[in-house]
Formats: sequence, C-alpha cells, structure tokens
Amino acid sequence: MSTESTTFITPDALLAHWQGHRRLTRRVIDAFPDDKLFAFSVGGMRPFGALAMEMVTMAVPMVRGAISGDWTTSTSRETRPKEEVLRLWDGSTKELDSLWPQIPPQRFRETLTAFGQYPGILHDLILYVIDNEVHHRGQGYVYLRALGIEPPPFYER
Amino acid sequence: MSTESTTFITPDALLAHWQGHRRLTRRVIDAFPDDKLFAFSVGGMRPFGALAMEMVTMAVPMVRGAISGDWTTSTSRETRPKEEVLRLWDGSTKELDSLWPQIPPQRFRETLTAFGQYPGILHDLILYVIDNEVHHRGQGYVYLRALGIEPPPFYER
Repeated sequence: MSTESTTFITPDALLAHWQGHRRLTRRVIDAFPDDKLFAFSVGGMRPFGALAMEMVTMAVPMVRGAISGDWTTSTSRETRPKEEVLRLWDGSTKELDSLWPQIPPQRFRETLTAFGQYPGILHDLILYVIDNEVHHRGQGYVYLRALGIEPPPFYER
Repeated sequence: MSTESTTFITPDALLAHWQGHRRLTRRVIDAFPDDKLFAFSVGGMRPFGALAMEMVTMAVPMVRGAISGDWTTSTSRETRPKEEVLRLWDGSTKELDSLWPQIPPQRFRETLTAFGQYPGILHDLILYVIDNEVHHRGQGYVYLRALGIEPPPFYER
C-alpha cells in the first residue's frame, strides 16, 4: 500500500498536535490561583495540581521508555508552588521536542509494555497519554468555573 | 519516504481508537439519571446532555462533510429523554463505521473548511472532534462525582 492509503497523521504532525494541547494545559495550570492549585477540587476528586503532576510523570517517561526501554519516572506528584509546576512543564515540553525524533518510526505500530504493566501498540499508548491530559484538563475547566475563573478558550492552541 | 517513516497511526486504527472513546462516552451518558442529564451542571456550565448532543452534531457531520462537501448538520441539541440521546448516539456510531472507509485516504492531509467556517487539515479537524468529546466527557466525570455517582473507568474502552 502507498503511504497515502495507510497514514491518518504523520509523527511530526502528531507531535505538533500534542504540543498544541500542552500549550493550552499550561494556560489552565497558570489560570489557577497558587493557593488553589493543590487545594481545590469538586466532588472529592484530585485537585488540578495533582492532575498536572500526573501528566508530567506520564509524557516524557512514555516517550523515553518507547525509545530506550527505561520506564523509570522519578518526579513525585507532591504539592509544590505553581511556578515549579510550570518550570517542570516547560522542561518536559523541550524534552519531548528533542526525544520525539529519536523514536524509530516503525515502533509506533509495535506492541510494548509501558511502565512494565500497560501493554499496547505504541500509537495507542501515546494517544492515551494525550487523552488523559485532555480528560483531566476538562476537569480543570470545571474547577476554574466553580472558582469563578474564566478558563482559556479550548480551541486556542 | 517509506510508509513506516511517515505514519504515526493508520486511518483504521484511528477509527478504532475513536470508537473506543465513543463506547466510554456512551457509558457516561448512561450513568446520568434521566432527570439530571439536561438539568444538572457545575459552575454554570452546560449540562452533560447538551454536551453529548454537541458531540452528535459534530462527529458524523464532520466525516460526511469531509467526504461529500455537504456540511449541514440537522440534529438539534435540545433536551430529550436519555433513551433518545443513546439511540442517536448508537446511530452515529454505525454511520461512522460505514462512512469512514469512504474518506479518500489522501484527504486526511488536505486543508478543508469544516462547516463553512473552520479551516484546518482534515486530520486536525477530526482530532478536534475527538478531543472535544474527551474534554467534555471529563467535565461529565466531575458532574457525576458531584452527584455522588461513580463514573465508568477512564481506561476501559
């Protein structure tokens, strides 16, 4: 089959799509008052700071693991100042840009076991990380509204 | 370039990924009590029934438009019984399966203007529809928790 008949999206375009989501998620983190980021939630759920730190522990470690087979993730999800969350976020963003081209292209269709316990085709595992970010960010939108804060527009990336 | 070097995911695998999300979203719709689906929300946001109907007005119309250039979407987002929302949802699921293979493969990388007003590369437009579903479903999780209802697990598709 030709490339055209088997490609929904290229690796480069998928990274650009993901980084667009990451810019929006960064704005959502930044929209929280520092004293609410790890302290406020709705319905007994986790606060947005904990969700953002979960995203940090998934994004780079997933891509690094796919390249190297090293599935360690050392960043804790503990409470910390917003500025530190944003600093870690920006570090991950740069690291993703430099790691992504190192993924061997055929690997996206290979089955791996992420973090030693989640088997899946790499494209599904990566989409899971992105979807998890979008899912939890949507929850952050509700938290912001409940705090009386207007969230950033969903369509701006 | 070879197929391997330019493909993150194939059209078939992307549809399977989307339909997995749609099965989960259906469970979230079904988890709402009928009298809360269009009546309950948090922070002044739209109730989940309205969000689910927005998804219905985006999914099939986006794919149909990409195939035919016909961007009409006739389903209203009005309040209706949960059973009717689920019936419309299931109809869309079947229609997506039959429409998807009709998208000319090269079109995924072409620039279209969806619904006469949203320009973009088709792969981004389709990902936008899926992301919008994941985003709003995440909000539905908060609504369910605020109602004291355990949402379906995010990782089950």
